Amino acid sequence: MTKISSNDQTNPVFNPAKFIQKERTTSKLKIDQINTFLESTPERRDLTHRLIREITNDRVLETDTSYYDLNKSQQREITANKIARLALYMEHDIKTARNNFENKNLIQDLQKNNGNEPLLQSSDFTIFDKRLSLIANIDPQLSTRVGVHLGLFGNCIKGNGTDEQITYWLQERGAAMMRGIYGCFAMTELGHGSNVGQLQTTAIFNESNNTFTINTPNLTATKWWIGGAAHSATHSVVYARLIIKGKDYGVKTFVVPLRNTKTFQLETGVVIGDIGAKMGRDGIDNGWIQFNDVVIPKENMLCRFIQVTNNGNGDVKVKVQPQLDQISGYSALLSGRVNMVMDSFRFGAKFATIATRYAVGRQQFAPQTKDGKNSNQEEVQLINYPLHQYRIIPQLALVYLISPVAFKLMDTYYKTLDELYHVSTAKDNDALVIVSAKLKNLFISSASLKATNTWFVAQLIDELRQTCGGHGYSQYNAFGKGYNDWVVQCTWEGDNTVLSLTSAKSILKKFGDAAQKGKFDSNLDGDEFGYLDPSFIAEVYTNQVTADINDDSDLESFIQVWAILLVKSLVHIGKVLKKNNDINSLSKLLVQISRFHAIYLMLKTFHEKLENEKESYITDDNTKATMWNIFRLFSVYYIDKYSGEFLQLKLFKADDISNVIQPKLFKLMALIRTDCIALSDAFELPDNMLNAPIGFFDGDIYHNYFNEVVKNNPQETNGAGIPPYYMALTSMLSRE
Amino acid sequence: MTKISSNDQTNPVFNPAKFIQKERTTSKLKIDQINTFLESTPERRDLTHRLIREITNDRVLETDTSYYDLNKSQQREITANKIARLALYMEHDIKTARNNFENKNLIQDLQKNNGNEPLLQSSDFTIFDKRLSLIANIDPQLSTRVGVHLGLFGNCIKGNGTDEQITYWLQERGAAMMRGIYGCFAMTELGHGSNVGQLQTTAIFNESNNTFTINTPNLTATKWWIGGAAHSATHSVVYARLIIKGKDYGVKTFVVPLRNTKTFQLETGVVIGDIGAKMGRDGIDNGWIQFNDVVIPKENMLCRFIQVTNNGNGDVKVKVQPQLDQISGYSALLSGRVNMVMDSFRFGAKFATIATRYAVGRQQFAPQTKDGKNSNQEEVQLINYPLHQYRIIPQLALVYLISPVAFKLMDTYYKTLDELYHVSTAKDNDALVIVSAKLKNLFISSASLKATNTWFVAQLIDELRQTCGGHGYSQYNAFGKGYNDWVVQCTWEGDNTVLSLTSAKSILKKFGDAAQKGKFDSNLDGDEFGYLDPSFIAEVYTNQVTADINDDSDLESFIQVWAILLVKSLVHIGKVLKKNNDINSLSKLLVQISRFHAIYLMLKTFHEKLENEKESYITDDNTKATMWNIFRLFSVYYIDKYSGEFLQLKLFKADDISNVIQPKLFKLMALIRTDCIALSDAFELPDNMLNAPIGFFDGDIYHNYFNEVVKNNPQETNGAGIPPYYMALTSMLSRE
Repeated sequence: MTKISSNDQTNPVFNPAKFIQKERTTSKLKIDQINTFLESTPERRDLTHRLIREITNDRVLETDTSYYDLNKSQQREITANKIARLALYMEHDIKTARNNFENKNLIQDLQKNNGNEPLLQSSDFTIFDKRLSLIANIDPQLSTRVGVHLGLFGNCIKGNGTDEQITYWLQERGAAMMRGIYGCFAMTELGHGSNVGQLQTTAIFNESNNTFTINTPNLTATKWWIGGAAHSATHSVVYARLIIKGKDYGVKTFVVPLRNTKTFQLETGVVIGDIGAKMGRDGIDNGWIQFNDVVIPKENMLCRFIQVTNNGNGDVKVKVQPQLDQISGYSALLSGRVNMVMDSFRFGAKFATIATRYAVGRQQFAPQTKDGKNSNQEEVQLINYPLHQYRIIPQLALVYLISPVAFKLMDTYYKTLDELYHVSTAKDNDALVIVSAKLKNLFISSASLKATNTWFVAQLIDELRQTCGGHGYSQYNAFGKGYNDWVVQCTWEGDNTVLSLTSAKSILKKFGDAAQKGKFDSNLDGDEFGYLDPSFIAEVYTNQVTADINDDSDLESFIQVWAILLVKSLVHIGKVLKKNNDINSLSKLLVQISRFHAIYLMLKTFHEKLENEKESYITDDNTKATMWNIFRLFSVYYIDKYSGEFLQLKLFKADDISNVIQPKLFKLMALIRTDCIALSDAFELPDNMLNAPIGFFDGDIYHNYFNEVVKNNPQETNGAGIPPYYMALTSMLSRE
Repeated sequence: MTKISSNDQTNPVFNPAKFIQKERTTSKLKIDQINTFLESTPERRDLTHRLIREITNDRVLETDTSYYDLNKSQQREITANKIARLALYMEHDIKTARNNFENKNLIQDLQKNNGNEPLLQSSDFTIFDKRLSLIANIDPQLSTRVGVHLGLFGNCIKGNGTDEQITYWLQERGAAMMRGIYGCFAMTELGHGSNVGQLQTTAIFNESNNTFTINTPNLTATKWWIGGAAHSATHSVVYARLIIKGKDYGVKTFVVPLRNTKTFQLETGVVIGDIGAKMGRDGIDNGWIQFNDVVIPKENMLCRFIQVTNNGNGDVKVKVQPQLDQISGYSALLSGRVNMVMDSFRFGAKFATIATRYAVGRQQFAPQTKDGKNSNQEEVQLINYPLHQYRIIPQLALVYLISPVAFKLMDTYYKTLDELYHVSTAKDNDALVIVSAKLKNLFISSASLKATNTWFVAQLIDELRQTCGGHGYSQYNAFGKGYNDWVVQCTWEGDNTVLSLTSAKSILKKFGDAAQKGKFDSNLDGDEFGYLDPSFIAEVYTNQVTADINDDSDLESFIQVWAILLVKSLVHIGKVLKKNNDINSLSKLLVQISRFHAIYLMLKTFHEKLENEKESYITDDNTKATMWNIFRLFSVYYIDKYSGEFLQLKLFKADDISNVIQPKLFKLMALIRTDCIALSDAFELPDNMLNAPIGFFDGDIYHNYFNEVVKNNPQETNGAGIPPYYMALTSMLSRE
């Protein structure tokens, strides 16, 4: 219902809700089955639904369109209040995960490290981690601000601390339960971001009293962008150069207190400032930190992989475990990257839902008559224009393709980290080699998937905003803040370009080993890097396999075409490299390798899941057929998008693109279009997760949108619309 | 100098200023000549510099980094104060343009329509229009908010009103001089944007008393997005359906008073609300309007092309001049489109300057040793990585290519509109046919250039922000608000997709006439549509001309390749259309046609200007050579970007892309890279126009940036950094 009763509401020109409802009645898709597919398993699906219900029904955590009008200070304060609320949910979630509500003091007992309770495990956080991941979709700055503490600070300690240090900081001091201390992650500096190895902050060992002195030696060494530093952190993990007797051992990690945990006063020697306004996520209190002779005890160096021993006679020994020392330094970032692939799925789902509903409900231009004039017929729904389908449907398909790979990556991450933890505790060196190799693969694929999907979703938000015309530019329809909050994902926790290059260089190295030395471990690499199997490379070389997607029933051909592209691209790079030996000159192609690898992985993982009913939970044939069309569309859309590369490397002939690829693309889009409302409904995002009235479920676009605008901008009842600063205007207009 | 003295500033790790200064001493480019080229002529260049000086030195108009911290209410009030200030500059500018400072009452005399002064001419506004255009680059919401009144409201009256109406509203009532009344432009409605013909607001003629009654018949007919409506407009031009005796004559324009010009109270029957928060440009008070039986006199219908006469005996006659009636309806938007191409140049210049300086000053990663490790050498400047050159240099080239076409389009616009005005006054029907054709061409090219360049510059801002890493995400470095303010240009005053389709369809029609009927008017179309010359089309058909850019000295070949692509694309579209007769199915290709047409025009206009020393003002050979390299690079960059299309249409062979195009691309980038600081200096944008410390002229990136952050976020001197809401945090951390 509109708030404005002065107009006749009985006979509106448009009835978008009617169109949207009609699509729901005509679609035969089994939405529940699809939702289970997208949420990975029935158990995880149920948990997702339960948590979304709790998040959207909690009066502290809920977010509505008034959110888009908050200024920076308001955002920060509200975010802090929400964090305090989340701390309570966390206790609840740990109890639920342990199925232990009888011990009313469970959290206190854990913190006291009471022997009656087993130590905190990662399984204790399964529910809360998911809660945080879902919150990222409605209030990203909130989940980041918590994530800095739990994810970055916490994981840095878990990845680099000894068991004792982990227990002390996370459990006894309470950090893991958001009690006692609140942490931040002081890695980047004003002058150094991606190049962690060259950070300039120093940690000088004082032999005489077993302490470290932390210093910021120059302006560019100022810790910069540190989330939580400006207002909320009591402690920080600081990346600093370990210097002992003048020798530089490289960058290590140290826990440094920043503020008194009771009064929040800064510790002496610590200088902190506010980074201020950002493009998005202003609810996070990013700050800068300078250290002036800050002294910390020796125990505050995280020393799982490096130990400093001081016998007191000027004899200081340093022991480093080189295999893991370097990787572990970055492992805190790994969790973020893995989470960002999941975020890509959820952010994509949100904006795809909004734009699809708007495209179905919005009408524009009557059909043209033969002489090119507009007829008097009813205006056409946007979604019925092929160009509009081209702008919407492939983005919807993209979101579908991200989900399986996001869940798989998350599972692999937890499994590998657990393995690493156990192997490094057991000090089993053979096992260590294997887990290092697995960790390396995880680095490659998470980097490639993070970079590719955060870029794809940035484009998705931008493109879909434009499909909503002017209404997409209103803050109340979520795109503006959504985009601003999103795009930092392309930069932080590994700049996308740097990550793409790193992962592509590793793939190139693997390719060299496989093609030249026949080295390929199918147990280790068979799954993610199947295209590097030497026998497949040989088949590509000898044209025994060729790109061919004519046969729709040959589903694997839609993956294979990317495998061939990858091999041919790698061969091409190898050839050029032989000539000029300058890897930098090839970096534009390397970024593409990372992208193609991600596309390949996404297709492969989706295919694996959907072809197995036990994994896909999709038993309905019609639904399955549509899901396969989405799979095909994704492949075909990107073939067309990268047709330059496909043609350059001669996977296709010039005419194939317009005769085969593009007709298939438009045919698939038209097929999927008939179910597009059902496919976006299948994300099962309630209105208060979307927080965009033009995308609300009931499809009553204009009333919903109008009402939210009026709610947030109430008309002045007295004064009849006189603006507060009208004197500036009247004196201008009446000036002599 | 940094504000933080606790750190040793004497020996910083990095010295970005040194690098940037060094490039200035080594470059041999004649920056002044380039600046004259970019600013069109020496006279225009001098005016630009003078106006920029005035804008940046006026304490009311100046904008610094504190701008990025303003909330919506502050932005709106400050913008209103700036408008009042601009009104004074406008008087000054009119006097300057008339070279008449003796008549102290010039503005009052003009308003009184005093016969001693000639009527206001468009030449009176040359200086002020330029002032506004330059303001758009530092404070876009200010220029838009003024532009709504002068550009949209004013141009609508100029385009649709009779001479008497123009004189009355713009001169006697004072609108043209920002006195007496302030206008807004009520075209779009909640339910209709691009489809102007279907707007729903009604204007019903009352025969008995010669008035119109304006009504909003339903919610979707609510005027929506109306800039200036929420707070500042006293009057509006309203697009409404003219209804006489129940007959609908389509959408016409009416001047409707909204507020009392003294008290600013709303007129009776007018309901106005605030649209609220937007993705960007919150300084503009966009509003919505509903009309409830608002009565206006007959004279308030703008009637240059439509007249309603009422003899009082129930005999009402309507006379329409069909040739111009429709075009004129949109002509108010034309000025905006033309201005947006100029904005593309200036916005592009701003962000290219910031990113280029940062890329030269910022260092990242030491060179790698042979075994792939980082060496101990100094870290490499970002700009020296080929991939970084690929991200920066083509964007710089893009800006260079926009400038000549932007100035030419602006000149054509003024010339054509003047012609239209004179011809329609003289009622010369033959001349009217010619000017209509010219106007149509102006519609095609302005649509194609507006859509293409606003899209390109949106990508430019996004891509260049990413090249600045995290620092690009700080609001204080201009990219965030810059992007948010910019992207609405892709939607308003003609949605880019709709404009691309419209212009491409017109090109396709011209192509049909040329190819099938040999119809081609070289006087009219020879310049902008040279590729449609039937003899050229025949040469492409018979392969007498082929794409070939091997010879760098054959400058025209870099344009011709796009001419061939256009013809081949049009032939392809024609073929498909013959088969399926469904233009909608080809819309993806049509968008490309519009884009290719814009690229062709940009190359052609740049070439025309640079090859003629009298027009280019570039006499230095070395400078000219670099300018030609920029021209080549632009062509080659987009060939590579659209290699899919070039290969599909067989302009090149698959190997040409990697053997010819890409090596040429990287070679050109490396050449231009050596002068990249000079080329960005040549935009001559002072620091307070850039308003982004990482891009300031002196190149002292880190100090400048640090100081602006601290200035806007002063550290609390007492309380030692305790956040205002710390109780929420301490009570969470100490909870039981």
